[in-house]
Order: sequence, then structure tokens, then C-alpha cells
Amino acid sequence: MNKNSMLPLSAETTIGFLGAGQLARMSAAVVMRLGMRAAVFSGSGNTGSVNSGTGGSGPGSNRGRHSGAVPDITAALQPLEWMTPLRYAGGFGDEEALVRFARECDVVTLENEFLDGDLLLRVREKSETPMWPSPSSFLQLESKWLEKETFRKAGIPVTPYKKVASVGDLTDFGVAHGYPFVLKSSKGGYDGYGNRTVYNAGGINDAFVSLGGDAGHELIAEAFIPFHKELAVQVARNHTGTVVYPCCETIQQGHICKTVIAPAPIDKMIAGEARQLALQAVEAVDGIGLFAFEFFLTDDGRLYLNESAPRPHNSGHYTIEGCITSQFENHVRAVAGLPLGPANMRFPVAVMENILGVRNGPAVADVPEELWYADETHLHIYGKQSSRIGRKMGHLTVLGDELVETAGKAAELASKIVL
Amino acid sequence: MNKNSMLPLSAETTIGFLGAGQLARMSAAVVMRLGMRAAVFSGSGNTGSVNSGTGGSGPGSNRGRHSGAVPDITAALQPLEWMTPLRYAGGFGDEEALVRFARECDVVTLENEFLDGDLLLRVREKSETPMWPSPSSFLQLESKWLEKETFRKAGIPVTPYKKVASVGDLTDFGVAHGYPFVLKSSKGGYDGYGNRTVYNAGGINDAFVSLGGDAGHELIAEAFIPFHKELAVQVARNHTGTVVYPCCETIQQGHICKTVIAPAPIDKMIAGEARQLALQAVEAVDGIGLFAFEFFLTDDGRLYLNESAPRPHNSGHYTIEGCITSQFENHVRAVAGLPLGPANMRFPVAVMENILGVRNGPAVADVPEELWYADETHLHIYGKQSSRIGRKMGHLTVLGDELVETAGKAAELASKIVL
Repeated sequence: MNKNSMLPLSAETTIGFLGAGQLARMSAAVVMRLGMRAAVFSGSGNTGSVNSGTGGSGPGSNRGRHSGAVPDITAALQPLEWMTPLRYAGGFGDEEALVRFARECDVVTLENEFLDGDLLLRVREKSETPMWPSPSSFLQLESKWLEKETFRKAGIPVTPYKKVASVGDLTDFGVAHGYPFVLKSSKGGYDGYGNRTVYNAGGINDAFVSLGGDAGHELIAEAFIPFHKELAVQVARNHTGTVVYPCCETIQQGHICKTVIAPAPIDKMIAGEARQLALQAVEAVDGIGLFAFEFFLTDDGRLYLNESAPRPHNSGHYTIEGCITSQFENHVRAVAGLPLGPANMRFPVAVMENILGVRNGPAVADVPEELWYADETHLHIYGKQSSRIGRKMGHLTVLGDELVETAGKAAELASKIVL
Repeated sequence: MNKNSMLPLSAETTIGFLGAGQLARMSAAVVMRLGMRAAVFSGSGNTGSVNSGTGGSGPGSNRGRHSGAVPDITAALQPLEWMTPLRYAGGFGDEEALVRFARECDVVTLENEFLDGDLLLRVREKSETPMWPSPSSFLQLESKWLEKETFRKAGIPVTPYKKVASVGDLTDFGVAHGYPFVLKSSKGGYDGYGNRTVYNAGGINDAFVSLGGDAGHELIAEAFIPFHKELAVQVARNHTGTVVYPCCETIQQGHICKTVIAPAPIDKMIAGEARQLALQAVEAVDGIGLFAFEFFLTDDGRLYLNESAPRPHNSGHYTIEGCITSQFENHVRAVAGLPLGPANMRFPVAVMENILGVRNGPAVADVPEELWYADETHLHIYGKQSSRIGRKMGHLTVLGDELVETAGKAAELASKIVL
């Protein structure tokens, strides 16, 4: 197995994140608590949380800051080392910038997958900085097609799939697996983008063209699984061991994750099976770091591994307060070569509600007063300057003893947040 | 009562901390989670966590960073807004720098007390930025003598004291209250510095001179209280209400806090009384923000308010994982005008062990492997670059069901940490 060395626990140890969104933000908070330093690489235009300008606008103008003017950064104003993830600007395709970034770090890890596996390989070679998950693990999951091949070969059930390169391929697939089926962009795609549901033979051509199939873009067709529930399991792994989180349930709204319930209110044996499959999946790619695996659960109790992410995941945000060691902490520990912490839950139930933007415009959160007083109710706001309808702006986690009450409370409070 | 307005929950809302040590670090982490922005003012030479140089040393030299060379900060390297407390350099006596800092913030609060109350008043006037606790609250506690006067007049029991300006005054005090007694610097003083125990009349002169009494430095003499235990209570307060934390016990080692046990293993009525006195104390100064009050408890069950801090306190670090809402979160909520969160404990017992430096030199933490695997064991390292014997370098909090076991586990693990 890949072995990653233990980094020194000092203020000079720098953990670099490729990506500067809320996942990096939450992992960086752990880096800071453990006294190390975080650095983030923000690919311009690809990260949600990068603010244009640097806020503030100089002396005597604290009320002028809403204008978004770029401040006069004088000699008196320096980034405070212990809390400054150094931000490197450059696109995710900019090899030179990535190498320069990696050289500043003692280890580099991922925050998102808008990356090219071969490029990551070259960055690691040239910078000589360890990268976890490794480029080879990443390459095995890089395209949806390759991901399914990897897991299928490891004996993990996946939804029936086929790489398709022509309208004819799609027609054959429809004949073999029935309608509807899902056509997916094999590379790229996020939160529902890059998917098309094909309801009948008549819809094939439009779907194919809209996803760039006629331009040679790699596509896969997946049989439609009428699932009963969607589940997720996070796993942390490095040379010291592996920690598997509880199986949770995820509820989507228009292809975007809305609610997560932990533990998933399902048969304990099935939950155990999902966790076992997650363990097999991370081993199949010799993964080091924090991985998340999403499953379909059918009415007749069958599990299918649907998607994987080689990084902390929305489905695991509940772990921050809900588990002894959060996914973010175990992400940092894993890549830093430290022993992993227990993933046990602290409370019988944890419910996370995503806070999605409900309007387009400057992001100011309107939070109901009762939320602040509520028991074990934890608000996270990602600090993005602009809100957009459906944009992930934050999340709310509620811990409790009983599912219905806790889920109801979370849903009610979240519904009253306007951002 | 002072009323502070509720700040907008947005990425442009800046909460400023006067002081850049570990207390600002832990409060800033909350500011970040709530999607706002932190700024810190570091008085040069007065803060423990300010690193000389800015770490790093440019491209291609991640192994060279231990040399402490100042990095080449290129255009590609910018502070990342969402995690950068802007650091303002300048002494705590530099009015212009403080005013400039305050103008960048939507509210300013304290992280330490190495500040002059009248100066704070002028800074608030000139910047027009709200400051909590208010300068007038701060002025009432600014000198130890004034602090005792304030609480005594509010009917809160304090150790017998007297302002002393001559050797004769000290002799009189010894006659009236017996030996030993404690001579204290009325202003300044931190973690035992600025105190002298006077064991007999023969020790008076040395003590007086060593604390600058002959040079007109304000001193107070305090009767020695043979205490059974030392206790502490944190209180958060603003116009929305007041939240009083559990009464905890603090155990010092050579005048420095070593261990904190929550809740304090004492008679519940006395714990309730201490919490009541803490509430009275914060009201006596119309305090807004997070305050900590330290008490002596005598063998016969009497409480004396010993010291107060108008800011989060070492005694309250256990609240981060140990309570529903940490002292740092309620500090931020209080000064931002937000409703305060519940201070109930999550577990029957929380024990915090300070991690004090055991050597002089670069700070690299040596942590026993079993700590990482241990249940509900939470490590905090403050990211200071240099360790010094006795310096507060971090802390460890262990949560559990039972006191003896939890305290034993915390002590054992902490004793094995070398930093």
C-alpha cells in the first residue's frame, strides 16, 4: 500500500488544497487547530468561495467596503501567518502555477475534481511534494467510465453502464436496459450538470448532442435505477489504518443535495453492507485521504455504488459536530500521515440541511432568531460574497436524540434562512 | 444597558480583535464558520502567536522554510479573503494604528488586557467603530485596585485588599491581615508575573521595590486566602440576554493554569453561588461580550472573586467541545449583537490540560500515538513558531462520563506531549 510519512506538527508544516471552496475552508480550519498551516490553490473562475477583490477599502471607510473596492494594502497590513491559507491564483490547467504551489507545501491534497489526472502526476513529479490521494488513485476515478470499470472489476455492484460514442450506441443501450436511462458526461459534471435523462428513443439525439457526444466528448449511459433511498458513506484511510463513517441518507432536490440524515434510517444489515462496500471501494484504488461513496438502495434492498469523490463531501458535513472526529479532521490527519480518529457519532441523530441561495445578489444571511437559541443547532456560512439561486451557501446541522423531531427541527429552521 | 446592534451575517462584516494570540485565533475560527471576516491587531512584542517573518521562503524551497527566511510574496500569492484576519502591526500604545485598524472593522473586541482604557476610549471615538466590551466597562476593571473597588461596591465578596504606596502601608497591611499576604502590580501582570508573596515583615522592602513601588507604580496588597479550590465561571452577555457557563475548577502549577475540570466537583449550591456572583459581576460593569471570573473557594465554603477578564479565558477552552456553544462562539455572537447560544455541557465531564512548552526552541509537537485514537480527545496547537519553557503552546480537552477516569486520561496523555 501507498505509505505516507507523518508530517511534523509545527507551524511550518503546510498542507495544500487544490481548490478554494467551502471544503478547503472546513479542512483548513482543522489544519489551523492542529497548529499547522493551510495553503489553497484557487483555479480562477472554478471556485465558489473566491471573492473578487479583497474586501475592505482602506482607512476611514468601513462603510465603504460594500462597494467592493480593492483596498490599499499598506506595509502595516500583512497576512497573519497562522490563519492565512496562501492563495495561489492560476487555472487548474496551469502546470507551472500548480508546481510552484506544490513546492510551497509539505503535502498537497484535493478539494475538488476539476483536475486532470495526468497533469497531477506531472505536478507531483516536478514538485517532489507528496500528493494524496495519489495521482494514480485519482486516475482510476477520473472519468465516470473508468470509475465504474474500477469498481466493477473490484466486485462492487454498480449501475449497469456502457461507454457510448454514437446515437446508435444509445439506441442499443435503450433496447438492452429500457427507458428511461441516464446519459452522463464521463469527465467533469457537478451537482447534476452534465447529465441528461433519456425518456425514449426520440430523446436520444438531443441528449447526445447537448452533452457534446457528437464532438467526441466521452459519454456513458447508465441504466435508470428506481431507488428507494440514496445513501453515502465517507471513509478515511492511510498507512495507519482505515476509518469508515456511519452510513447516512442523502435527499436531493433537483439534483442538488438538500438534506442528510445520519445514521440512515434503514436496516442495520444494509447499512453495514454499504459501509463494507465503501471500504472495498477505497481499497480498490489504494486510496489515501478522505473518500465519499454514494449508493442507490432499491426497494428490494440492493445497493449500487453510484458515485465516488476522492475528497470530503457534502454528505459528510454532519460529521463536524455529529461525530467524534469530523471528515475534515480525518482528511487532514490522513494526508498528514497521522493516525485517524474515531468516526463514532456523538448523538443518536444528526441532520444536515444545505443552505442554498434563494436569490441572486450580495450574500447576507437572514437567520431566524430562534435558531441562535436552539439546542445543538450549528450554523455554517461559507463566506461567499454572492448568492445565486441554488448555490451552496452554507449548511445547518442539528443533533438530537430522535429522528423525526430532529429532522423536523432542522427542516423548519433551515426553511427560514434566507441567503 | 449598553445596546449593540446586530451586524449583518455577510463576508464583508469584519470583527476586529485587539491582540493576535491564541484567544483571537480560536474566536476567529468561529467568525469564519459564521461566514464573517476576522481582523487582528497584533501589538508588536506583546503577543505570543505572532511569528517573525511570514513563514515560507518562496518557490522551490519548501524544505528551506525552517530557516525562517522572509518569503518573496509574488503577485501570485495573495491572502485568501475568507481566512485572513488582516494583521495590523503597531504597538498597543499606537493610537493612530489602532484607529486605522478600528475603521476597517464593523466592531472591535478584546483579546487581551495590555491596553490603556483611556486610549481605547479615544480609539472608539475617533474611529466611530463600536467596541465591546465598552471602554467604560474596561476602565472599571483596568487596574486590579479599581476592579476590586467595582466588585466590592456591587456587593461581591473579594479578598481583603488595599492600595499601598509605601513600605509603611505594607507594614500596616501585614499587621491588619497577617502574613503571608500578596503584593500585586495593579496594572499589567499576566500568569503570575507582577505578584510577590510577602512572607514576613522582612520581605516587604524587596517585594515593594521589585514591583516598582518605589518608582510610583500602582500596587495593591491582598490578604492571603488559604483556598481549598480555585474556580472559574465564564459569562456571555449582550442586549439579547446573558448566558452563564458551568462553574469549573482550575488547577495552577506555578501560577500558570494547568488543568481545568468542568463541572467543578464541588457542592452544587456553591457552584450555583459562583455562577450567580459571576452574573452579578458582569452586570456590575454592564459588560457586553465574554467575561471570565475566577474565584477562591475556602475550606468553609466561602467564595471570593479573585480576578476577572473581559475576554475569553484559558479556563473556558473546554467549552469548545464540551459545551453546546463555546465561549468563543458566544464571544463572537455577543459582540456581533446576535442572540447567545446555550452553554450546557454535552458530556458529564470535560477536562482540559494546558500544553506548556517544556523546552526552548522551534516548536514541533511530539504527540503520543494513542492520543490520535483516543475517544473524545481533542488536541489544539496554537501554531506558535517558538516554544519556551512554560509557554502556553496548546491544550488538550478530553470529554467523558466520569471524572476520575477522564481526568486521569487527560493528564496521562498531556504528560506525554512534548512541545
